[in-house]
Amino acid sequence: MAMVFKKVTLIGRSGESFDEAVDDAIDRANETLDNVHWIEVDELGVEIASVEDREYQAEVTVAFQLRDGE
Amino acid sequence: MAMVFKKVTLIGRSGESFDEAVDDAIDRANETLDNVHWIEVDELGVEIASVEDREYQAEVTVAFQLRDGE
Amino acid sequence: MAMVFKKVTLIGRSGESFDEAVDDAIDRANETLDNVHWIEVDELGVEIASVEDREYQAEVTVAFQLRDGE
Amino acid sequence: MAMVFKKVTLIGRSGESFDEAVDDAIDRANETLDNVHWIEVDELGVEIASVEDREYQAEVTVAFQLRDGE
Amino acid sequence: MAMVFKKVTLIGRSGESFDEAVDDAIDRANETLDNVHWIEVDELGVEIASVEDREYQAEVTVAFQLRDGE
Amino acid sequence: MAMVFKKVTLIGRSGESFDEAVDDAIDRANETLDNVHWIEVDELGVEIASVEDREYQAEVTVAFQLRDGE
Amino acid sequence: MAMVFKKVTLIGRSGESFDEAVDDAIDRANETLDNVHWIEVDELGVEIASVEDREYQAEVTVAFQLRDGE
Amino acid sequence: MAMVFKKVTLIGRSGESFDEAVDDAIDRANETLDNVHWIEVDELGVEIASVEDREYQAEVTVAFQLRDGE
Amino acid sequence: MAMVFKKVTLIGRSGESFDEAVDDAIDRANETLDNVHWIEVDELGVEIASVEDREYQAEVTVAFQLRDGE
Amino acid sequence: MAMVFKKVTLIGRSGESFDEAVDDAIDRANETLDNVHWIEVDELGVEIASVEDREYQAEVTVAFQLRDGE
Amino acid sequence: MAMVFKKVTLIGRSGESFDEAVDDAIDRANETLDNVHWIEVDELGVEIASVEDREYQAEVTVAFQLRDGE
Amino acid sequence: MAMVFKKVTLIGRSGESFDEAVDDAIDRANETLDNVHWIEVDELGVEIASVEDREYQAEVTVAFQLRDGE
Repeated sequence: MAMVFKKVTLIGRSGESFDEAVDDAIDRANETLDNVHWIEVDELGVEIASVEDREYQAEVTVAFQLRDGE
Repeated sequence: MAMVFKKVTLIGRSGESFDEAVDDAIDRANETLDNVHWIEVDELGVEIASVEDREYQAEVTVAFQLRDGE
Repeated sequence: MAMVFKKVTLIGRSGESFDEAVDDAIDRANETLDNVHWIEVDELGVEIASVEDREYQAEVTVAFQLRDGE
Repeated sequence: MAMVFKKVTLIGRSGESFDEAVDDAIDRANETLDNVHWIEVDELGVEIASVEDREYQAEVTVAFQLRDGE
Repeated sequence: MAMVFKKVTLIGRSGESFDEAVDDAIDRANETLDNVHWIEVDELGVEIASVEDREYQAEVTVAFQLRDGE
Repeated sequence: MAMVFKKVTLIGRSGESFDEAVDDAIDRANETLDNVHWIEVDELGVEIASVEDREYQAEVTVAFQLRDGE
Repeated sequence: MAMVFKKVTLIGRSGESFDEAVDDAIDRANETLDNVHWIEVDELGVEIASVEDREYQAEVTVAFQLRDGE
Repeated sequence: MAMVFKKVTLIGRSGESFDEAVDDAIDRANETLDNVHWIEVDELGVEIASVEDREYQAEVTVAFQLRDGE
Repeated sequence: MAMVFKKVTLIGRSGESFDEAVDDAIDRANETLDNVHWIEVDELGVEIASVEDREYQAEVTVAFQLRDGE
Repeated sequence: MAMVFKKVTLIGRSGESFDEAVDDAIDRANETLDNVHWIEVDELGVEIASVEDREYQAEVTVAFQLRDGE
Repeated sequence: MAMVFKKVTLIGRSGESFDEAVDDAIDRANETLDNVHWIEVDELGVEIASVEDREYQAEVTVAFQLRDGE
Repeated sequence: MAMVFKKVTLIGRSGESFDEAVDDAIDRANETLDNVHWIEVDELGVEIASVEDREYQAEVTVAFQLRDGE
């Protein structure tokens, strides 16, 4: 059987920029998944009312290679 | 690292109404996930041929906060 | 509570055809999930530069029934 | 030849709720079509200016199995 | 039961303009359907190679009220 | 000059149901706009983490007729 | 701070053509907004049942430059 | 009046491949419609739980030329 | 090898109408491409601020048959 | 009646980056609206021909809470 | 400057299958472009009326690496 | 004949940020095209597995004015 990828959706956040929010999501994916291959940015937004200043948010799709038994 | 959210897709079902089908999916998410923050309704439909009467179905995206190691 | 479905996204691959790439993803889903009900094809593509010949790829959404505690 | 399905689009209406508007469209489909299998909800809306109170409307796609000669 | 609408998709054509292509589709709908209420324009295009000059085409969705037994 | 419509986007909310959330948005539109003609439902969702129980939300587009000088 | 644009959605109407329906919406926008820069056509349709002949409708998004305090 | 096309939506099925599922829908369209001109593939999927092995499904839009009185 | 088509995107413009803007793009395509088969209209808009009166614009996709070595 | 949100669309601009263009739109929204809760990024682009260097543009949807009488 | 990719859209055709129609488009791309990296399938369809039997068509987007001066 | 624009799709890349990846694509467009007017960002992503660290990618549509004979 050939190599198979799986995709999951994460939302990263940062007080500074969209680039950092995306990096935040990738960092989190790398912590718990062994073979992250690429990510796609699905949505960008900014939360304002419930935080002190502005919180940049990035919803990303993470693609990682499935290992045996996963 | 900032708080990170993950999204999963569930399909809830009910013999009564779309509201109940959505609640059904939220109930199930709450059973196995600790920090469900919000859901988005993706699709509504009704199954007719393979059930006795009508079965209302709701496909929803559930967003929950990732805990450490998740 | 009624029966609930969950959806996950996989990318299957084959050196031969799109049908085989889809089957590849279903095979993998069946290995680790007990109750796969149906799949939807989201995207078809062909990788050319990083492989020897051509690699047919199919991104599919797999719907399976949740068991208790899942 | 295997079983073949056909899809048609209907708009049901109700003075009470979206659930009733969807049921209204299914009832109408069942009157003239023998093998309705499922419906998908395409759009929800409310007509206000040209009716007395509010009219809930649901555009649905109805899938039914084709009989011979249909 | 309340009034129910049905939608069908037609493609009108004209050698002159998109307006005429849309009118062409409405004229045809009015010939065989008794209660056309409105149409929506889905796509506009121009066929060039297989006709003498240019043929303006309009794909439209026609909504009409269902009569008894329809 | 012919009658002209304008569209605005509102998000209504309810602790009970999606129908009520939509009605909530229509009620608010009727308070400040004189000629609301129809609404379209754009998105349905449920807020869970920041409220006591569940809050049903409906994003709707409201179409109203423009008066002179508006 | 740099120049900022705002967008609003209008629906223009004409008994003659889609071009006139779009012009109708632009005329109305120019009456009450000082700095209309461009418009985008979102949807075209024809109302038939509730008018004498045919009414061409154009839903357009109007982009105008915000002045101070707007 | 110029030639007018109509579109209908069918779902073909096959135990073998997507190509066969599409052909299945075209065969069925040709049985009851005289002037099928082209089809467009809208969705591909595989049913797994309710059939013995795998059933490949293709939802297609069939465009055919309207004859008089149709 | 079978006949192959290529698609390019052009934006035509006219001071008079959308029909003319589309024709403008087709004229330009015919000047430099030998085998234009059809075009699809992708977007319609009107530029207002940077021109004297109104400039109707049409973004179209042009499909033409590839010749050898193209 | 529960809290109701309204959404408006703005286009912010900056000579430096997309982050600044988004902030530009939020700044402008905060100047004239009292309760901005969040924004969504709809489109990113760069204007080149009509400016000296490059102008980064961000179209955003701004959601704010309606006050009484608004 | 880093490696840059360009995308073009082709439509391949075959009397046999969709796989062959896609391969047909890739073959044509490889004839005139030096560094094709991957393709994405945009649309599948079948032409019926203007050909002898059935012609399977695949619209694909081809991504290739730009060489200097291209 | 009026001024006509053409659009092409490029993918720019950078080891640092999305802004740089977009600039990268614009730089490349300016090298070989004389009249680039604006660009639109279509997709953002990050390649991880096949590069040393992270590679930010931006797919953009470039609009440029056609010169005679182009």
